[in-house]
Amino acid sequence: MTAGNPLLSDRDVAFLLYEVHDAAALLRLPAFADHDREVFDLFLANARAFAREVLYPAYRPMDEAAPTFTGGRIQVHPRMRAIWPRLCELGVITASRPHDVGGQQLPRTVALLAEAYLMAANLSAYCYAGLTAGAAHLIEAFGSDDLKDRYMRRMYSGEWTGTMALTEPQAGSSLADIRTRATPRDDGTYAIQGGKIFISGGDHDLADNVVHLTLARIDGAPPGIKGISLFAIPRLYVETDALVDNDVSTAGMIHKIGWRGLPSLVINFGERGACRGELVGAPGHGLSYMFQMMNEARLMVGLNGIATAAVAYHESLAYARERRQGRPAGRRDPASPPVPIIEHADVRRMLLRQKAIVEGGLSLLVETARLTDLAHHADDEDVRRRSALLLDLLTPIAKSFAAERGYDSNILALQIHGGYGYSSEYLPEAWLRDQKLNSIHEGTTTIHGLDLLGRRALAPGALQALGREILQTCSQAQAAGVDLGDVAALQEAAGTAGALIAELAGRHLADPERMLRHSHDVLDIFMTVVVAWQWLRQATVARAALSRGTLSTAADEAFYRGKLQAAQYWLRTELPRVAPLARLCRDEEDSYAATRPEWF
Amino acid sequence: MTAGNPLLSDRDVAFLLYEVHDAAALLRLPAFADHDREVFDLFLANARAFAREVLYPAYRPMDEAAPTFTGGRIQVHPRMRAIWPRLCELGVITASRPHDVGGQQLPRTVALLAEAYLMAANLSAYCYAGLTAGAAHLIEAFGSDDLKDRYMRRMYSGEWTGTMALTEPQAGSSLADIRTRATPRDDGTYAIQGGKIFISGGDHDLADNVVHLTLARIDGAPPGIKGISLFAIPRLYVETDALVDNDVSTAGMIHKIGWRGLPSLVINFGERGACRGELVGAPGHGLSYMFQMMNEARLMVGLNGIATAAVAYHESLAYARERRQGRPAGRRDPASPPVPIIEHADVRRMLLRQKAIVEGGLSLLVETARLTDLAHHADDEDVRRRSALLLDLLTPIAKSFAAERGYDSNILALQIHGGYGYSSEYLPEAWLRDQKLNSIHEGTTTIHGLDLLGRRALAPGALQALGREILQTCSQAQAAGVDLGDVAALQEAAGTAGALIAELAGRHLADPERMLRHSHDVLDIFMTVVVAWQWLRQATVARAALSRGTLSTAADEAFYRGKLQAAQYWLRTELPRVAPLARLCRDEEDSYAATRPEWF
Repeated sequence: MTAGNPLLSDRDVAFLLYEVHDAAALLRLPAFADHDREVFDLFLANARAFAREVLYPAYRPMDEAAPTFTGGRIQVHPRMRAIWPRLCELGVITASRPHDVGGQQLPRTVALLAEAYLMAANLSAYCYAGLTAGAAHLIEAFGSDDLKDRYMRRMYSGEWTGTMALTEPQAGSSLADIRTRATPRDDGTYAIQGGKIFISGGDHDLADNVVHLTLARIDGAPPGIKGISLFAIPRLYVETDALVDNDVSTAGMIHKIGWRGLPSLVINFGERGACRGELVGAPGHGLSYMFQMMNEARLMVGLNGIATAAVAYHESLAYARERRQGRPAGRRDPASPPVPIIEHADVRRMLLRQKAIVEGGLSLLVETARLTDLAHHADDEDVRRRSALLLDLLTPIAKSFAAERGYDSNILALQIHGGYGYSSEYLPEAWLRDQKLNSIHEGTTTIHGLDLLGRRALAPGALQALGREILQTCSQAQAAGVDLGDVAALQEAAGTAGALIAELAGRHLADPERMLRHSHDVLDIFMTVVVAWQWLRQATVARAALSRGTLSTAADEAFYRGKLQAAQYWLRTELPRVAPLARLCRDEEDSYAATRPEWF
Repeated sequence: MTAGNPLLSDRDVAFLLYEVHDAAALLRLPAFADHDREVFDLFLANARAFAREVLYPAYRPMDEAAPTFTGGRIQVHPRMRAIWPRLCELGVITASRPHDVGGQQLPRTVALLAEAYLMAANLSAYCYAGLTAGAAHLIEAFGSDDLKDRYMRRMYSGEWTGTMALTEPQAGSSLADIRTRATPRDDGTYAIQGGKIFISGGDHDLADNVVHLTLARIDGAPPGIKGISLFAIPRLYVETDALVDNDVSTAGMIHKIGWRGLPSLVINFGERGACRGELVGAPGHGLSYMFQMMNEARLMVGLNGIATAAVAYHESLAYARERRQGRPAGRRDPASPPVPIIEHADVRRMLLRQKAIVEGGLSLLVETARLTDLAHHADDEDVRRRSALLLDLLTPIAKSFAAERGYDSNILALQIHGGYGYSSEYLPEAWLRDQKLNSIHEGTTTIHGLDLLGRRALAPGALQALGREILQTCSQAQAAGVDLGDVAALQEAAGTAGALIAELAGRHLADPERMLRHSHDVLDIFMTVVVAWQWLRQATVARAALSRGTLSTAADEAFYRGKLQAAQYWLRTELPRVAPLARLCRDEEDSYAATRPEWF
């Protein structure tokens, strides 16, 4: 059964791309004018085929045998060594980078959906490429031409790979506390000394070199985030024509419970005092530069969360159609044959909830990709500005939704498999392990709650931009004949969310601790509302298609009916959670805030 | 840090036993009149010391090296072989069995709390004892004196162990579909033929023999549950003075993702036509007998869920007090030292939620144990009857609460550990794996939702008995000076839950499929309300103790303050979920019910 797992629904991908998010409109932007829909479809078809035929069959072997750490070096799975050149050849590292750096200049909107297949098939394998793309993009955006020549081009081609090296053992989520030191040298480079932890893909035997985009403090820099600069630190330094050892060493490998194809490492710089790093951009701007990569990485984690939920959803859907057990309530004749478990309403509940999370979350991720495209390439400056603002607001929401609700979804995929789901002979437990990292890396859910309520939701115009989009969706839904109660429910919940932020900010701007007390609930509210918005968009298209009455196939009709059901599920069973959560926030319910550490 | 994990809070155990659930009152019942509080405390102290000193240090090694399956036999971990005789000696198998079968005749209320320590320390190790106790209890309750002599006594002493053998590969949760056959033989025994799956502890090298309490169909029995009988099937049959092979074989071992110290097996009976089983009780009553063991086993699973959440809670609490990272919102001076993460409000949220689940769930399990004691040993027949009724109602709720909310709690323990929590160098990931089984075995959460709404909540007088208890708690809370809003909130939620059942039953008794559509939500409502009831009880005691103003230590004051905070958390943040859930049920929201299989 596993062999036939589609990873994602191709029909849904086409629906989101062309029917909901109107990728065709992107072709009218100058940046994408050379493309056409066939180019998009071909890129997707290649990625999908590679995901299904090459990456997915390697997932289980790579999960079962993690990379090894011997002689100070990491050896990846042999399957991964075979995959890497083909992954580079597929063009995923530079799909959405401009022609002038060797990219294909595709919209992020298209590239993201291709990546979704790759991640659903084999998240670790894809991430060598994704991390390299993000690191190279930092140099593209902020590095000198010299750095681009010497590093970026080799990374974009896949000759070298890249990492982001932020976290230190003592600092964790608190980047202000990082200690890695950079001492200016006479040759313009910096002598780097320090240790980083949880560096994904920090060493391997896939490519000649690894470039660590690293946060460090230049001697004499002020404490806190203002003293942080960004450096490119290669494992091997280019000297004239040779690659020489740059005193970057792997001190240990974390035994992760998932993502087992991708090593997570403890990396030390300058143990022998011989590590050279090169400053990227201006001193003291490291964290703000890194935020570009972190924002990209957060959306990548969000996509990973949805992809990991998607592959498990499809596995459990196939299982529920095949596995026969029991009889529906009210039909208890023991002589009648058992029915496929999808006939049981509660199994359909678990499937529809997964569908709502997977397809609602994917739509939200596509939305962020479209906003990325518009923020960079729209003709109208106002559209660019508003898109950037909305993207900034949606990033922590999309990341956290995918991580938290994605995990809920993966739990259900395992549960549907019953006792078999609890065994490592079946795959749902592996995806459940993979998914758990997503609420931790690239900012824990706690951090995103604080970031949303304490910063992004307060950005002037951000909430208004979201409100406008939601209102527009509501009018379109109404025009298409979507249930008016559902439209009103979204409008009301969105109003509640907006009013809540205004109220909390108005009351406590001077007392951040009090204002942020329920940041987790505020994040939950926004996750719920924003995905409801995506579902109402999908319901609008589905309703219109069904009303036209010109559907060519029964499969098309079934597809749109399924969309309406999933939209109904999210709007009627999840949206009602918003009002009581908002009440908790407004009332400043203080159970945990007021609990002293010694009372536990 | 791990070494000092207390597993459970001793103070909380004493609080629940004596202050909330009044175990002293049990001493007035004739069955327990020979005991006194010192006996209870000594039994608990022994169990606690054994759990901390012997079981807990063996947990990790047993998780890392599961039993092996070679030469057709299971070999358990060497640590387990050393533990088994000491576990038997501790008296846990027969703690609450009567003197006349060799037990200590302790109240279940006391035995359960001892078991909680053992399970928190090492669930697999304890379960060899727990399964044996349950299987022997079945023979005690329904077997002939001859069966008791030949099987029960050896099981209660730990000389042999026991299992429950229900599940078959093709039938899963649908016991009506089991096929294992029993053919009468001339000697009064039955020739057994069939295969069972997921048999925990179905083979090992701990003891001489294993007795499988097995469901099978006697030739010619009617289809469905009425044709099911109960058999005792030993691995080795006693013939004159020798134990001879009984044609029971282990066909495979499931690679479970948790509970790794306890093998889960595929067991075949009668492959060579030479397996003898002995009928327990009357033919055709197998499932009703088994329900005794299943009800016990469900509460055991519930206790396991709470114990597994408890040990992880204490681990994350210690970590949060020690790990320093960042500064609270509003105190951002980067030169100030980082604070323990328990200083961050959102970390306290995750801790208080765990505390509310662990200590609220434990209180509910103690409640079920007290009801078990009263149902069997109360003087007044009416009390016995009502206690049995209430116990029956609470069993699926307590089991499912522990499994589902316990899992939520285990997630938070991992999350608090950040990136370290995602590695197998730390224990939270192991407990998270362990916990996942609890929503699957002994009835999936789906099954318990159907059982609650379709049967147990409809039992005449059951809801009334619960309603009376809750009302009584509400008056006591009011008298003790607990916040009136919190009291009213519980009263209202309990009223909503009761009215909902009446309404659904009244509307659709003739259409079970429609009535049961939202069984999952109904279960969620009852879980939430019943634990809120337990928290109001605890808050009442805590409030009264604080009001008396005679607390001897600051630790006592902190303990009661913590209870009030956790009660407030549950009553104010969880109880508001009830009204919108009830609305979904009443409105018969039909998103998944109406979704056709081909629409996914």
